[in-house]
Amino acid sequence: MSTITIALDAMGGDYGPEVTIPAALQALRQYPNLKLRLVGDEELLTKLLKLNSEAPGERLFIQHASQEVAMDESPVHALRTKKDSSMRVAINQVKEGKADACVSAGNTGALMATAKFVLKTLPGIDRPAIISSFPSRIPGKLVRMLDLGGNVDCTDENLVQFAMMGSALVSAIDNNERPSVALLNIGEEEIKGNEQVKRTAQLLSNNPFINYCGYIEADRIFSGDVNVIVCDGFVGNISLKSMEGMARFIADSAKGEFKRTLFSKLVALCTFPVLKRLKESIDPGRHNGANFIGLRGIVVKSHGGANVWAFAQAISEAIKQVEADVPNKISREMSASLPEEERKSA
Amino acid sequence: MSTITIALDAMGGDYGPEVTIPAALQALRQYPNLKLRLVGDEELLTKLLKLNSEAPGERLFIQHASQEVAMDESPVHALRTKKDSSMRVAINQVKEGKADACVSAGNTGALMATAKFVLKTLPGIDRPAIISSFPSRIPGKLVRMLDLGGNVDCTDENLVQFAMMGSALVSAIDNNERPSVALLNIGEEEIKGNEQVKRTAQLLSNNPFINYCGYIEADRIFSGDVNVIVCDGFVGNISLKSMEGMARFIADSAKGEFKRTLFSKLVALCTFPVLKRLKESIDPGRHNGANFIGLRGIVVKSHGGANVWAFAQAISEAIKQVEADVPNKISREMSASLPEEERKSA
Repeated sequence: MSTITIALDAMGGDYGPEVTIPAALQALRQYPNLKLRLVGDEELLTKLLKLNSEAPGERLFIQHASQEVAMDESPVHALRTKKDSSMRVAINQVKEGKADACVSAGNTGALMATAKFVLKTLPGIDRPAIISSFPSRIPGKLVRMLDLGGNVDCTDENLVQFAMMGSALVSAIDNNERPSVALLNIGEEEIKGNEQVKRTAQLLSNNPFINYCGYIEADRIFSGDVNVIVCDGFVGNISLKSMEGMARFIADSAKGEFKRTLFSKLVALCTFPVLKRLKESIDPGRHNGANFIGLRGIVVKSHGGANVWAFAQAISEAIKQVEADVPNKISREMSASLPEEERKSA
Repeated sequence: MSTITIALDAMGGDYGPEVTIPAALQALRQYPNLKLRLVGDEELLTKLLKLNSEAPGERLFIQHASQEVAMDESPVHALRTKKDSSMRVAINQVKEGKADACVSAGNTGALMATAKFVLKTLPGIDRPAIISSFPSRIPGKLVRMLDLGGNVDCTDENLVQFAMMGSALVSAIDNNERPSVALLNIGEEEIKGNEQVKRTAQLLSNNPFINYCGYIEADRIFSGDVNVIVCDGFVGNISLKSMEGMARFIADSAKGEFKRTLFSKLVALCTFPVLKRLKESIDPGRHNGANFIGLRGIVVKSHGGANVWAFAQAISEAIKQVEADVPNKISREMSASLPEEERKSA
């Protein structure tokens, strides 16, 4: 088992090192072949490690960074003025070959802009996208959806590139040669949709490299009917957050119901193991770690509000991506679709 | 209690009269002051009523219509070639003063286009929108969201009008003089969002008739933090369907978990009453009946796949709208915001 090195933006996310340090220690215990580079304020990180009875060592290296990117900072501002931020330095580790991947729970827009600036996109890709996987009704089958918030204003061509990348990712990871790709829309009939969706459907139908199967409505995301679902980042993020909000509302309402009477409290005790398994099978935290796809390097974005367990999941996701050699595989798939000239210059 | 007359598009929806007739009979039993005009194929409807041991009478009138609008028909085609469709004739009943409101489970786009053509919009409104209410974490507090799919390509001005209408509806129904209005977005910071959302936020901030409170993310729809949430119809429909899909996925997964072992089957028996109450409190069917808002008349859109119970809910929703005199109240609220000249010509 070869060693894998991951750079962690230790200061990012709603909780910063309070979450990233315990998650790092947990990941090191779980993966004996893992090395981590904790990026952030060296003094603070050393102190916090000491509180956990740990010290930097062979497997846990601290890389100092003097700045932090705020959660509400504009990507342009972060890019211009935060050249020594924990986020930027963590991405630099990947660029410089010191890490195989980087994980951050920081400001999504800034992470996207910085990763694109530092690592550059793969040949044939104008903009990276955020992709994540969802469970489906078909046991073991994951559905991948992109873009989930990286690009709020997209061109038709961007959407086609998202379809290519999603398709290439599924080919690379799931050994599926012709992944089915659908376009997220508000109906399945041809007449439905806004102008952009209709134009993109035309482009996808005519693209020989994509196994395009038409529109899919948002209530069928979990159906398992397709491998890849494509949408712009604004719509994708609204869809994702709508699902999260509904899941939380149901969970909270269920808790309320189970607390209403003594009988229902007793029922809740018996129900607990069942609900726990249910939660594990659909918990978004379990699927924490959206990938930035389309870059010359692996960058995993954890949910900003991730807890220790969820941030550790994002580290696991990065390890999986490294093992599957995702960027190189996508690059090969993509370059097959490029005209000869572009392929040479790539 | 004064009589209320509702016209039903008896042929609309995925199931047509199989659902609309039993739902009509149920509503007549529930509301002694209700009269219904069943619009559709007279021969078929009479035959189906007979199977239910019923006949047309004082409270249940059949209005013949020779055509039907297909669920996948283009709105323009329906408008041009289906002048005697059950949908169009049902809307005509409202226009001609024979009914106080109309309910249809038919093709949303065609219903929207036909209702707009026949009834016209209120002064100051360019396009009607689809609005519905959601439960929230605050007991008894509903959150209203629009547009949920009526207008897929919107201008900034349309979105401002949606905000005005939503606000007016809440004022009219909930006696809330300054309903809070938020714009659905992918973040709450000012820098977030696509170009349209940013421009619309500017317009809303400067509008003295709207109590605008900024952006809201889709995972906070159920928070109860605001009264009205505004978005374009494409995004609104994706959000709605994403929530529905998640709720169904959770319900199905829960069923699966409860069937795994004998113990969990026994637990399920005890849990049943609790889950039933939970389902009732969040079931989208309970909130079936999205309203078309902005028209000179009341049109309620039932979910196409509504069952008898859910279609009856849509009829109840129409009754509520009639009792609250919604279009007139919105018209008064809207006209207060119009320049003097437009007010006179309205």
